Amino acid sequence: MSKALSGKTRLEHDLIGDREVPVEVYYGVQTLRAVENFDISGSYLYDYPEFIYAFADVKEAAAKANRDLDLLEPVLAGAIISACQAVKSGKYNDQFVVDMMQGGAGTSTNMNANEVIANIALEIMGHKKGEYQYCHPNNHVNLSQSTNDAYPTALKIALYRSITALEKELKLLIKSFKSKGKEFKKVIKMGRTQLQDAVPMTLGQEFKAFAANLKEEIERLQQNKKLLLEVNMGATAIGTGINSDPDYTPLCIEHLRDITNLKVKAASNMIEATSDTGVFIMNSSTIKRLAVKLSKISNDLRLLSSGPRTGINEINLPAVQPGSSIMPGKVNPVIPEVVNQIAFRVIGNDLTITMGSEAGQLQLNVMEPVIAFSLLENVEMLMNGMKTLRIRCIDGITANAERCKELVMNSISLVTALNPYLGYEVSTKLAKEALETGESVYDLILKQGLMEEERLKDILKPENMIKPRKMNL
Amino acid sequence: MSKALSGKTRLEHDLIGDREVPVEVYYGVQTLRAVENFDISGSYLYDYPEFIYAFADVKEAAAKANRDLDLLEPVLAGAIISACQAVKSGKYNDQFVVDMMQGGAGTSTNMNANEVIANIALEIMGHKKGEYQYCHPNNHVNLSQSTNDAYPTALKIALYRSITALEKELKLLIKSFKSKGKEFKKVIKMGRTQLQDAVPMTLGQEFKAFAANLKEEIERLQQNKKLLLEVNMGATAIGTGINSDPDYTPLCIEHLRDITNLKVKAASNMIEATSDTGVFIMNSSTIKRLAVKLSKISNDLRLLSSGPRTGINEINLPAVQPGSSIMPGKVNPVIPEVVNQIAFRVIGNDLTITMGSEAGQLQLNVMEPVIAFSLLENVEMLMNGMKTLRIRCIDGITANAERCKELVMNSISLVTALNPYLGYEVSTKLAKEALETGESVYDLILKQGLMEEERLKDILKPENMIKPRKMNL
Amino acid sequence: MSKALSGKTRLEHDLIGDREVPVEVYYGVQTLRAVENFDISGSYLYDYPEFIYAFADVKEAAAKANRDLDLLEPVLAGAIISACQAVKSGKYNDQFVVDMMQGGAGTSTNMNANEVIANIALEIMGHKKGEYQYCHPNNHVNLSQSTNDAYPTALKIALYRSITALEKELKLLIKSFKSKGKEFKKVIKMGRTQLQDAVPMTLGQEFKAFAANLKEEIERLQQNKKLLLEVNMGATAIGTGINSDPDYTPLCIEHLRDITNLKVKAASNMIEATSDTGVFIMNSSTIKRLAVKLSKISNDLRLLSSGPRTGINEINLPAVQPGSSIMPGKVNPVIPEVVNQIAFRVIGNDLTITMGSEAGQLQLNVMEPVIAFSLLENVEMLMNGMKTLRIRCIDGITANAERCKELVMNSISLVTALNPYLGYEVSTKLAKEALETGESVYDLILKQGLMEEERLKDILKPENMIKPRKMNL
Amino acid sequence: MSKALSGKTRLEHDLIGDREVPVEVYYGVQTLRAVENFDISGSYLYDYPEFIYAFADVKEAAAKANRDLDLLEPVLAGAIISACQAVKSGKYNDQFVVDMMQGGAGTSTNMNANEVIANIALEIMGHKKGEYQYCHPNNHVNLSQSTNDAYPTALKIALYRSITALEKELKLLIKSFKSKGKEFKKVIKMGRTQLQDAVPMTLGQEFKAFAANLKEEIERLQQNKKLLLEVNMGATAIGTGINSDPDYTPLCIEHLRDITNLKVKAASNMIEATSDTGVFIMNSSTIKRLAVKLSKISNDLRLLSSGPRTGINEINLPAVQPGSSIMPGKVNPVIPEVVNQIAFRVIGNDLTITMGSEAGQLQLNVMEPVIAFSLLENVEMLMNGMKTLRIRCIDGITANAERCKELVMNSISLVTALNPYLGYEVSTKLAKEALETGESVYDLILKQGLMEEERLKDILKPENMIKPRKMNL
Repeated sequence: MSKALSGKTRLEHDLIGDREVPVEVYYGVQTLRAVENFDISGSYLYDYPEFIYAFADVKEAAAKANRDLDLLEPVLAGAIISACQAVKSGKYNDQFVVDMMQGGAGTSTNMNANEVIANIALEIMGHKKGEYQYCHPNNHVNLSQSTNDAYPTALKIALYRSITALEKELKLLIKSFKSKGKEFKKVIKMGRTQLQDAVPMTLGQEFKAFAANLKEEIERLQQNKKLLLEVNMGATAIGTGINSDPDYTPLCIEHLRDITNLKVKAASNMIEATSDTGVFIMNSSTIKRLAVKLSKISNDLRLLSSGPRTGINEINLPAVQPGSSIMPGKVNPVIPEVVNQIAFRVIGNDLTITMGSEAGQLQLNVMEPVIAFSLLENVEMLMNGMKTLRIRCIDGITANAERCKELVMNSISLVTALNPYLGYEVSTKLAKEALETGESVYDLILKQGLMEEERLKDILKPENMIKPRKMNL
Repeated sequence: MSKALSGKTRLEHDLIGDREVPVEVYYGVQTLRAVENFDISGSYLYDYPEFIYAFADVKEAAAKANRDLDLLEPVLAGAIISACQAVKSGKYNDQFVVDMMQGGAGTSTNMNANEVIANIALEIMGHKKGEYQYCHPNNHVNLSQSTNDAYPTALKIALYRSITALEKELKLLIKSFKSKGKEFKKVIKMGRTQLQDAVPMTLGQEFKAFAANLKEEIERLQQNKKLLLEVNMGATAIGTGINSDPDYTPLCIEHLRDITNLKVKAASNMIEATSDTGVFIMNSSTIKRLAVKLSKISNDLRLLSSGPRTGINEINLPAVQPGSSIMPGKVNPVIPEVVNQIAFRVIGNDLTITMGSEAGQLQLNVMEPVIAFSLLENVEMLMNGMKTLRIRCIDGITANAERCKELVMNSISLVTALNPYLGYEVSTKLAKEALETGESVYDLILKQGLMEEERLKDILKPENMIKPRKMNL
Repeated sequence: MSKALSGKTRLEHDLIGDREVPVEVYYGVQTLRAVENFDISGSYLYDYPEFIYAFADVKEAAAKANRDLDLLEPVLAGAIISACQAVKSGKYNDQFVVDMMQGGAGTSTNMNANEVIANIALEIMGHKKGEYQYCHPNNHVNLSQSTNDAYPTALKIALYRSITALEKELKLLIKSFKSKGKEFKKVIKMGRTQLQDAVPMTLGQEFKAFAANLKEEIERLQQNKKLLLEVNMGATAIGTGINSDPDYTPLCIEHLRDITNLKVKAASNMIEATSDTGVFIMNSSTIKRLAVKLSKISNDLRLLSSGPRTGINEINLPAVQPGSSIMPGKVNPVIPEVVNQIAFRVIGNDLTITMGSEAGQLQLNVMEPVIAFSLLENVEMLMNGMKTLRIRCIDGITANAERCKELVMNSISLVTALNPYLGYEVSTKLAKEALETGESVYDLILKQGLMEEERLKDILKPENMIKPRKMNL
Repeated sequence: MSKALSGKTRLEHDLIGDREVPVEVYYGVQTLRAVENFDISGSYLYDYPEFIYAFADVKEAAAKANRDLDLLEPVLAGAIISACQAVKSGKYNDQFVVDMMQGGAGTSTNMNANEVIANIALEIMGHKKGEYQYCHPNNHVNLSQSTNDAYPTALKIALYRSITALEKELKLLIKSFKSKGKEFKKVIKMGRTQLQDAVPMTLGQEFKAFAANLKEEIERLQQNKKLLLEVNMGATAIGTGINSDPDYTPLCIEHLRDITNLKVKAASNMIEATSDTGVFIMNSSTIKRLAVKLSKISNDLRLLSSGPRTGINEINLPAVQPGSSIMPGKVNPVIPEVVNQIAFRVIGNDLTITMGSEAGQLQLNVMEPVIAFSLLENVEMLMNGMKTLRIRCIDGITANAERCKELVMNSISLVTALNPYLGYEVSTKLAKEALETGESVYDLILKQGLMEEERLKDILKPENMIKPRKMNL
């Protein structure tokens, strides 16, 4: 935290006892205890501002609903609402100091939000921080709520927005692949299956397939992020809605829709919704799927650019840094390599989320903080990785068109195109003979009088081999 | 395999050379080599009949399309089609002998299907097995196809049907939970968060929440299995459609729709579709999510039935077998325990599928067999697990209503309901005092004159605590 | 099961009630219930005979200890011991019918063993099956034991032996790699890092490194399997040893050492040993490490044999089956491919084992059956995979020495060897120029007069680049 | 980074081109490019000072070996050595700015070290930063090395030390458990298997078992960390030792032993050692095993402290913070909960490490950075978690001895102790009757005249049930 502390303190109190809190800070005794109890991961709430702002949205919606129900008097409600809006300006981010990894199902994070908002509201109302008789973190800011509804609701909103940002980055990457697909549409090259020579295609087809492959992810992300909009505000402790007014849920949801401009809705079974974390598994799965695809594409880019002299060398990745501390002139595919590693982390975190989800018990899943942390981290890393991949790699890729063509021309597997004309067994014999003698399939066919030259040329023209074609039997 | 072999053989031939094949068997030389090459897992194609039948569907559709395009003469096409239908009767299942785990991206499985169908067709046409000049596994049965389109298409159809069967089983389980929810709707009990006493609810609410929790899975399964209907018939080797007629894909798809009665459609980018395995990740994810939920529910059932004397003991699971070889009279929650273990296998297999998917290279994912095996196994195990759980556990659960009520009455955490009336800090003090002195919250409030008895009784009435309620401030 | 049943039954009884059991079978009522309760995985105890035999060892040791302590009369003890030995002949394997996946922490497996052994003993003593008053599955065969000590002890012995067999197979594979290392010791080739050309080496060095890499696994397997020899016989239900004689543990262990010829020892803390499954995590980890290494080696083999014309093509894998249903003459690296897939299953199962282990509660880990199943399956699959890899792939690999040499000669990265003489920056410039102009590094140096030809030749001689060398500065 | 930059720059140059570098910073152009290329994880080299210091150790050892071999002149060598020592003082930590996640197999990290050390050495020799003609990051600091030997060697040393620190923390935790074991040695309680009442034990036995369970981890950590001491200094690019003097490896190792006081030794096969990451899998496995055990123990602590009124409630965890924002007085087991979550992250990271290891190709594993990051993070989190668990939970645990005793007295499962006297079937009947009638086993036996009271009392005395005992038949 940046602010210098004077050393002066105010006295606060909770279930555990009394405690001095620095006068300058907006958080209170419960946050302080959480900071001391959980010094675990080196990642803090302030590293994920989206989560802070989503909490402010939730607290604002609750305050408005409580005001509408006369559970909060207008002045106090107004101060809380203003405090929530101030939090969303970003200037209190450094007050959100709890570790992302914490016990208590998010109570520490929720109390950090309650305390900071309460103290901002107190100042707005002309009181001092800590004068909780005028605005209490639990009695007023947290009114009609529980960690068990406020925390997952804020997390869902934060995730929804993060995934929306991820989609934007993904669309830019798809555009880059498409653009390369267009650029390379005339580069004839060999397709490969099982790392063995298969049949011809264009480099443009290959890059367009990368684009098409990623485009499906937009749909998956959009489809599954919608599930995040079902929230359990009003569930309170276990979903029975104890201590909440029957009108509170619809009111709170309506305000939350207005505030966030998202189609938030109430879960139909609040008890189910309060302990269930299935929505996080589902969204983690789509994010993992994206990571797996990016890893496969990165592997392909590394294979296609392997060389320069002893590999496939069909494409060149832009050189972004010297590749070796000992081998001069070496340029390595460092950008796809880091994308692979991001994918491995994302897959690891997906497992963490799965285990966290499985460990829920009875009316609550106490492992939500590790789920929140791992999911938000996954989105963040993938966003960084895709941006890096696009700008520092894809956009600068060039093709070695001559090399691509040469590899097609030398290939034995052109024999596949002759399959419909000569049959599988004759073609097999030809391929074997070509491999053993080193002669070209073309020459062998002519020598053995299996086909006329003109017809053979027509069949083996690369342009004729890269799409379906009426047989000329 | 059940059939006794006479020792007589026929001679077959492939790229590797000549080979004697037992005269009785319908598979040929390539299957035989595959059986020898891959003796790995102890699980064979015949263990997954759905997969065999889906292959027969694919081969039938291809034969019909080839016939329509005059690529196969009508008699031959007719024989192949009849052979496919014969396969679907189930009587040739024992001829599908390749290991589920295999190299070659499924070529061995595809050739097993091609060879068996060719030999059945030969017999239909009055020829002997192995007289491939009349009906050839590659030239005729596999015509216009490649393993790389036929294998994933068959897998998708098999999975679609398996998941549909899984849904049916799931619906029965949901019904059982719902029925118990109704049965237990008046049993007041304590809700728990973080394994600590929280606030009251009914046992009916708890079981209804299980039902609601699983009901969402129906939607997820249905939504994601639809993705399986996009297939790549006509892609042939790498998706460019080499050796296929431009009209083949739409014709083949149309026949496949007719044969399967499923809304199969052609992938829009065949190159992408041929190497991509994202659809398997997505479906594995939904199946994993179901497994995670079943594991969480099983954990809850084990907790709630813990005891009989030193645990929670709110419910009784039916005794299905003696629980211990040394402790007489012990009955253990063996059914939920096996469901947990199924879930751990499903999660492990989901990882296998993820790794298999990530390992795709260039124009093909050669790891499809391990993906197929792991996914089909997951569906099978979950189906067995859910049926077992329903019949041998859920349907026989009884409630210990007295015990449930007693636990509520003794609980300190009733104080939560007083929060809106007495405030968080006063309530906290009361709770602490009750815990330390052993006195009830009820008595303490009256003794301290914090509330009138009648009002207190009203607030603490269990029926009033299990749903939202207008405050009586 | 192979034996035909007559339809005649005998009546048995347990905690749940009466039950007819076919007269022919050696298992009893509890096994029958287990078979009905658990129809889950399609894998049965009889698929893992090592596990059956280890159970017989454990029961024999217990019977001998009970006899020594006068807890079993000599005749009865003798019959049980003989029955155990009969089981180890393998002829009763088909009586071990419970599913490998089961609830109850292995009670069903233990009771299957108790019942079969009791009935064999009964017949030995001239009684009929089911006359348990003379030899009772619980009172006599299971005497002084619990599932909670007998099951993990049998599992450990079975695993120890399976891992020993795995080592033998591994040693053969190492030998094959070593032998190829020797065969290829003069084949100079390019080494690659990050799929980019690095510096020269020999193909022999590469294969020797594979051998060295796997050789470490022998040590790891041996080191960690030793941990399996610590068993908890005498722990009975929870490790306190209730119902066991103080002398029972040392006696039983001594007999178990004699019977198995393994250095079995008693755990120092029986309570810890009874719930702990750490030893399975550790052994699963070493098995996973072996799988990861085999997968990496398989990836390398697939890369090195990629081609034949458009890949690296430094080595040829033996052709074991036609590679494609559509591409004639295609030969694919199907054996390494199946090894990759085995590795993915092993890694998935390792996760299952980890989750099973984490789910242990209080005095027992009830997930031991899924741990047992997954570990035994992993060993089995890896054993099959390594044998297949050795016989059907490694032993038949040939080198394309000319191709290897040519790739070295064309490489720019030879410039690395000049680094000590010309410095990193001059060398970098040379490399860049060579890449851009297509000229060889050799020519550029001479043209630019950077070094005399003789010295240059000496430095660039491949033999001089494949090991450390005194600089000639 | 804390230092304010003046805006002045110096010009540096590399393979990619010229680049201005702020005059104040000690790193150079390659580090700067790495910072721009890799903005991924939010975790930087300076977050892991152990890794920085281990790099300084490696660079110092190399400089000394180069000096001994006359490859570096003494003054220059001396300056580099002094620079390395200065780095180890910690005052240059903020110059190690590269992201922990990076492509290039650690080249960026190695170059960050080379550049910072070169510039410190330049200043020591009276030159300005960037005057690399006097001390060059590649030609001098990196002399006789490659990233491919320096990076993994530094990582191994850093990990060895981190694991040693982890052991210390673990020993303190074990001591705490032991101490509680002693404190609770007279508290008789019920043991539980499968969450069902089993047989009596003491709470002391339970806590001693936790201690014993963790004590095994000390051995595993020690055994496996030793494998980290085998390093590949002198391997240079791919393990062939190109550009290194034959005497370099032994000299460098000797210096490294002196500098680190660790028994570092050279790998016997340098080619194998350069691409292999098995040692990281092995150490990740032991760390994961520790995490799994801590998670199981945390689950137990949460079960045993469940309640206070509706759970097991045998122990009390210290209250470290209010447990709920809505339920006053609620105290939750937040510390064990965070340990569970740490374990899930550790297991997720172990998977990441496994995948990174599997992705190695040919002569190098380019995924080492993600392996390094995930392993160092795991050690750090576990260290924090164990410290937190010890201080904020274990040391403050108290027992509810009365409650424990009462649960034993009410239990039906005492019947187990009667098994040897009454037989399994009679005992089973008694248990069933007790459960159905609510009567105690004790009364039933006397009423049915099954045993004399005195003998019964003796058998059922809790002290007699918690260890093996001569039968009194």
